[in-house]
Amino acid sequence: MRTVVTGAAGFLGRALARRMEEVGYPGDVVLADRTASPSPQGVAIDLTERAALAALVEGADRVIHLAALPGGAAEADPEGSRAINLGLTLDLLDILSRRSHPARLVCAGSIAVFGAQLPDAIDDATPVRPSMTYGAHKAMVELAIADRVRRGEVEAMALRLPGLIARPDGTGFGSAFLSGLFVALLAGERFTMPVGPDATTWLMSAERCADNLLAAASMTFSAGDCVLTLPALRLDARTLVAAAARATRADPALVTYAPDAKVEAQFGSLPPLLTPAADRLGFRHDGDADSLARRALNGLRAS
Amino acid sequence: MRTVVTGAAGFLGRALARRMEEVGYPGDVVLADRTASPSPQGVAIDLTERAALAALVEGADRVIHLAALPGGAAEADPEGSRAINLGLTLDLLDILSRRSHPARLVCAGSIAVFGAQLPDAIDDATPVRPSMTYGAHKAMVELAIADRVRRGEVEAMALRLPGLIARPDGTGFGSAFLSGLFVALLAGERFTMPVGPDATTWLMSAERCADNLLAAASMTFSAGDCVLTLPALRLDARTLVAAAARATRADPALVTYAPDAKVEAQFGSLPPLLTPAADRLGFRHDGDADSLARRALNGLRAS
Repeated sequence: MRTVVTGAAGFLGRALARRMEEVGYPGDVVLADRTASPSPQGVAIDLTERAALAALVEGADRVIHLAALPGGAAEADPEGSRAINLGLTLDLLDILSRRSHPARLVCAGSIAVFGAQLPDAIDDATPVRPSMTYGAHKAMVELAIADRVRRGEVEAMALRLPGLIARPDGTGFGSAFLSGLFVALLAGERFTMPVGPDATTWLMSAERCADNLLAAASMTFSAGDCVLTLPALRLDARTLVAAAARATRADPALVTYAPDAKVEAQFGSLPPLLTPAADRLGFRHDGDADSLARRALNGLRAS
Repeated sequence: MRTVVTGAAGFLGRALARRMEEVGYPGDVVLADRTASPSPQGVAIDLTERAALAALVEGADRVIHLAALPGGAAEADPEGSRAINLGLTLDLLDILSRRSHPARLVCAGSIAVFGAQLPDAIDDATPVRPSMTYGAHKAMVELAIADRVRRGEVEAMALRLPGLIARPDGTGFGSAFLSGLFVALLAGERFTMPVGPDATTWLMSAERCADNLLAAASMTFSAGDCVLTLPALRLDARTLVAAAARATRADPALVTYAPDAKVEAQFGSLPPLLTPAADRLGFRHDGDADSLARRALNGLRAS
């Protein structure tokens, strides 16, 4: 068995590679990105060159497609986002659909498809309404995946991921504070949250996300389940801070709150999230705040 | 003022060109298609060549984009549909978004975005759920248009068109009978409807559709109205047949019914259609069955 991971040098890609190593993932694993990861499985490749992309996934049984232009960069460069966030995934769908037997493709989607103006609760019937170019292209990819799956040409799945923690470099386009909290407390430094203690977020550790991606790569699923919102732990900022302090053995008094209305509106006002389809298939969030914090910290220490 | 029409040699394009001629549409008009229309305004161009497309719309104040790979052809050739139904429109959006001042782009959308399994009624809040590649690509285009309009880079509008009549060549991918009825009765020939007399359809004459496209090319609209379902006349087959017979002065007894379950499910079971947003902006269906039949017949005679 041959498994190809794209975007393997990114935050989630590195967490996935670590997890595949830890669990002794079977078969050949290829870790592809613009710059090769230092592992012997690493391959440097320009994925936007269709011939190179086709060669990369030639003979692959499973493709876990994480390569993306992140939200902030996509907003600044919509044509670049079209090429990477949309075009690349459509190329993969075209290439894999030409196979004589369906290949498995797992794509990293995003809750960004729901946009900024959220209803009182999100469930599997909530229509998409992206408010950023990144979310628009992710929503377009979902339609393309659903169509190729309907045609029976590829076993593809898009998983809408919540905010992932803890990013070592503080990236995350507005939601960086959710990782920055862990980075600061681990260093024993003061940290100011740009939201109030009651702000609510959806979170998942990169490690748990990796487990969900690996589950998607091998599970049986029906066409109606090819686009899924993953479950996420919905926490208020106070609970997250307390768990982060326990995990890092830091003094929670290091953390103060200075709510920024814009950040609070976009990343601190997330309503209840219901994901029955993903739950039924066995996808899981981190379970509780302390488990989330522990895994987030594991990832931070390993990276 | 310069107005460019793409897909000008198609059924709707020809009706639009006739209508622009009839109403004395102001300014320069360019009628572009793969094969030039016989009019002096006709231009032959391969729209999938981005440089040619950019040159075509250079300096255009209004672009009415009708070029498409139709539903049946799109289903048989998804990569071709990606290039024409999706890529071409995204290219137009990219090109026009680079302008220093926003250009007007009117795109022919489709009720195909709603798919085959329709709810009890369709309104402006009904989520898209395409069940064919054509509808999937049209739905993807809608997301791209909404995003570019949100960014303030182009004044673009996608109009979801219902079934248009009457096509002289009987094209229309399963819904061909709705035009075939007129062709047969005009020739005084017998015709068998593949649906029962109570089957319900959504229809618009190509002439009225052209008027709606021209209205969209000049109206003021807000970002929230950039993707619209056009109103359509919802008729049962019995009423349509009677109106077609009156318009053609044919004997309605020439028409018999032999319902085909598949055709009836897809084109003969359309629920009530509510289009408050389009209604508010002044878009109109044909008003009544006799007006629809008269305009459908006008178009058939002119083509």
